[in-house]
Amino acid sequence: MGYSLNALTDFLATVGMPSTVEGDGARHVTGVATLEDAGADEISFLANPKYESMLGRTGAGAVIVSKEQAIPEGMNVIRAPDPYAAVTAVIVRIHGYREHASVGVSDRAVIHETAQIGANASIHHNVTIGANVRVGKNAVMYPGTYVFQDCEIGDDCLLYPNVVIYPGCRLGDRVTLHAGTVIGEDGLGYAPVEGRWHKIPQIGITELGDDVEMGANCAIDRATLGRTVIGSGTKFSNLVTIGHGTKVGEHCMFVAQVGIAGSVNVGNNVTMAGKVGVAGHLEIGDRAQLGAMSGVMRSIPADTKVAGAPAMPIQTALRAFSMMEKLPDMHRQLKKLEARVKELEGKLGEQG
Amino acid sequence: MGYSLNALTDFLATVGMPSTVEGDGARHVTGVATLEDAGADEISFLANPKYESMLGRTGAGAVIVSKEQAIPEGMNVIRAPDPYAAVTAVIVRIHGYREHASVGVSDRAVIHETAQIGANASIHHNVTIGANVRVGKNAVMYPGTYVFQDCEIGDDCLLYPNVVIYPGCRLGDRVTLHAGTVIGEDGLGYAPVEGRWHKIPQIGITELGDDVEMGANCAIDRATLGRTVIGSGTKFSNLVTIGHGTKVGEHCMFVAQVGIAGSVNVGNNVTMAGKVGVAGHLEIGDRAQLGAMSGVMRSIPADTKVAGAPAMPIQTALRAFSMMEKLPDMHRQLKKLEARVKELEGKLGEQG
Amino acid sequence: MGYSLNALTDFLATVGMPSTVEGDGARHVTGVATLEDAGADEISFLANPKYESMLGRTGAGAVIVSKEQAIPEGMNVIRAPDPYAAVTAVIVRIHGYREHASVGVSDRAVIHETAQIGANASIHHNVTIGANVRVGKNAVMYPGTYVFQDCEIGDDCLLYPNVVIYPGCRLGDRVTLHAGTVIGEDGLGYAPVEGRWHKIPQIGITELGDDVEMGANCAIDRATLGRTVIGSGTKFSNLVTIGHGTKVGEHCMFVAQVGIAGSVNVGNNVTMAGKVGVAGHLEIGDRAQLGAMSGVMRSIPADTKVAGAPAMPIQTALRAFSMMEKLPDMHRQLKKLEARVKELEGKLGEQG
Repeated sequence: MGYSLNALTDFLATVGMPSTVEGDGARHVTGVATLEDAGADEISFLANPKYESMLGRTGAGAVIVSKEQAIPEGMNVIRAPDPYAAVTAVIVRIHGYREHASVGVSDRAVIHETAQIGANASIHHNVTIGANVRVGKNAVMYPGTYVFQDCEIGDDCLLYPNVVIYPGCRLGDRVTLHAGTVIGEDGLGYAPVEGRWHKIPQIGITELGDDVEMGANCAIDRATLGRTVIGSGTKFSNLVTIGHGTKVGEHCMFVAQVGIAGSVNVGNNVTMAGKVGVAGHLEIGDRAQLGAMSGVMRSIPADTKVAGAPAMPIQTALRAFSMMEKLPDMHRQLKKLEARVKELEGKLGEQG
Repeated sequence: MGYSLNALTDFLATVGMPSTVEGDGARHVTGVATLEDAGADEISFLANPKYESMLGRTGAGAVIVSKEQAIPEGMNVIRAPDPYAAVTAVIVRIHGYREHASVGVSDRAVIHETAQIGANASIHHNVTIGANVRVGKNAVMYPGTYVFQDCEIGDDCLLYPNVVIYPGCRLGDRVTLHAGTVIGEDGLGYAPVEGRWHKIPQIGITELGDDVEMGANCAIDRATLGRTVIGSGTKFSNLVTIGHGTKVGEHCMFVAQVGIAGSVNVGNNVTMAGKVGVAGHLEIGDRAQLGAMSGVMRSIPADTKVAGAPAMPIQTALRAFSMMEKLPDMHRQLKKLEARVKELEGKLGEQG
Repeated sequence: MGYSLNALTDFLATVGMPSTVEGDGARHVTGVATLEDAGADEISFLANPKYESMLGRTGAGAVIVSKEQAIPEGMNVIRAPDPYAAVTAVIVRIHGYREHASVGVSDRAVIHETAQIGANASIHHNVTIGANVRVGKNAVMYPGTYVFQDCEIGDDCLLYPNVVIYPGCRLGDRVTLHAGTVIGEDGLGYAPVEGRWHKIPQIGITELGDDVEMGANCAIDRATLGRTVIGSGTKFSNLVTIGHGTKVGEHCMFVAQVGIAGSVNVGNNVTMAGKVGVAGHLEIGDRAQLGAMSGVMRSIPADTKVAGAPAMPIQTALRAFSMMEKLPDMHRQLKKLEARVKELEGKLGEQG
């Protein structure tokens, strides 16, 4: 089993990544692993120069490297223009994606008689599907998943254990939700009445586009009215939360613990690093990049990088950050300078 | 079905919101929607002037606006003193709150023989209720909910799927917990012994007052000794966590991802915006308002607004924030000024 | 039932904490409680001088205090060198750890025929265990727990309700995972291709050492390749998330809402306070201490304390924090000083 290095370079050529073998092109590898862990029958890769020193210590049978990378004597390598892209393709080639057993519709699932389940579904035991739910074909739903009434789930969706979808929400095709993620819970919608909070019915929904993937234990509020929207192709890591009525564009990537308040409009291809927070009713333009732990209090134009809390343009933020450590010095300098000016003023006064 | 605009103004008058119709008072509406989404048989509202331009584009059959709002020719409106309060009342009138099917006690729920379940409960399949648990009347518990032994759950509580309540905890009446929220797990209670952590049994409990509502995937530690308390009427959004032994007052509102350490005392009517963090053993006074991402390291008096990390009084914080971007300039200015003073000192020295 | 104060001091001596009784050594106590809550048949403790004033108000039958603590007339006390360590030992003595009913393997658990379950397990109803899973002896798994195929679970592990372990992950002995925690979900592994994100199969695993304990609703990514590792004896609070391929050392303690990106190496005995964030590919040295809400952008040497975002050495951070409030003043001072220097320059110019 496995592939020879020659076979892998042939394959890489077919996916637009021309590469060359150095060393033993007939060498077979059966898996991909890190430089640290790889054995003689595995192929590894070097993409980040930080890890270059590990080339000399790896037990890998072969390594994917860049065109110009210096290598130890006798190492079998595949040289590719972009080693990270190449190893990604090789992982897919050798390992493929996680497979899910075909279990049909379990007789221990609880499915409302009015729900429609598409062809070739794997609905595990202890899944609950409510009234008038429509589920597309090839659905995989693991135990503990609960889909409330009136939801629409597209084709090829994958819900890991204990995912909950509140009433009336819609998932596009090929949506993947990891364990414990909750879609469409009520947002923080209360009206203050004499020092108490009166609940406002949350009658909107949450809508996820095609190819959305979310990590574990996320929570995406439904809208008070209308829709909370996560655009097609957008990917979230774990513990991300989105407020009611917020609309996130397509092909965005949000790292873990991002939190966005309600009624925000986020454009397409926006990146938010870990723990970013965005206040309500703002606009985040297309392709904006928000650094880790940014605290966004104002709208951000398209194609802008920001960092800091409150968030500033990245260059300003980096300079401001470097100043932080100098603040005590600046304070001292300022005091000394004032004393010197006072002395000068005194001297000039005497003269005058 | 639905209501005429005249009927809605009659209704608003009965709940203390006198309002007037302009346009066709006989017009019927069957739902409430946003200006963006509303159709001809729906009513919408304008509360935030930011969205005023949408008045001209909405397809809504009628709109709730303020007394003085300028409107397009021919639009049907209800003019109310507070459009947001009015639309809230209208949402409740037209849509009501989410209804939960009455399912009785499922024979696929696992309920200990010593547990007492009140009248009119809906205990779904795959709910587990432990020994000596007492549940009040009208409880709704969705699948995957687990209530450990010795808990007390008040009347009219609503537990969404996969909620977990650890042993001995107490919920008041009308408590709502959204999917995946965990109440009473062990806090981070360990004693360091020779470089290792020895677990301290967490023998306290967590107690939620009446009318508490929490979002999805929250986690509220039990106390090491005594009680962690969340006061009546307090509302949390998603992914909020509270440390062991902390006491939160009544009618507070905590936005998503707030985290409070152990042994904190939070007063009544306190607001914490998204991602606020509070260190252990502090006092947060009544009606304090903590801005998003505040990092609270010292106690905060009543009626105080703070922001920033570390948290400062809001006015100081806003000034400090506006200074951040100026820091590099200040640093440059300071250097230049020092050179100029040195030159002055030189000249005066020559003179002297 | 219960213990006399004399019996408790005898016990404390056996665990290396010599202590003495003042007052009625024959007094029996049956439980431990806080100074606020304790009744006449309970023992309390005073470890934090902040709560000293409560000594006069407590209803406790006895109190554990330090050797030098002043006490109210007639109070029964046990004087111990370290009251907190002593009360911890007394809690264990009197209350012990939470006990878990022995339920065997439920016939409503779904266990693959190839899975091996060790002796004396308590596998509750609605637990699912996949193919080729090996579970050690004395396992306790509560309902809603899902263990995917090919996992290895050590001896004496305790999984609270709704815990999910993804395929191929490994847990050591005596691992405790609180409700809703997810181990081994896919990390944020995507390659950008023409403005879209292509998923990279995540073929690595997550490995937890012995005696690891995690709070509720945590999420620990599996590695893309190789292993994400949490070292033996490490303890996490709630809502902690760890990125793919990160390795956390032994005996660390992470407070709630800590988030670490991928490919980070964290040493042993590292403490991270609440909401700390660590960027990818960094090294955090042994015994480093990261203050609450630290934002770590650079590697941190061993034995270093940091705080702030971006994180700075603690002394620098504390000085910088104290400067933040002074920034507006400094800005004003700087402007005034510049004016004064300009005036001086003018005068000297006239003279010259």
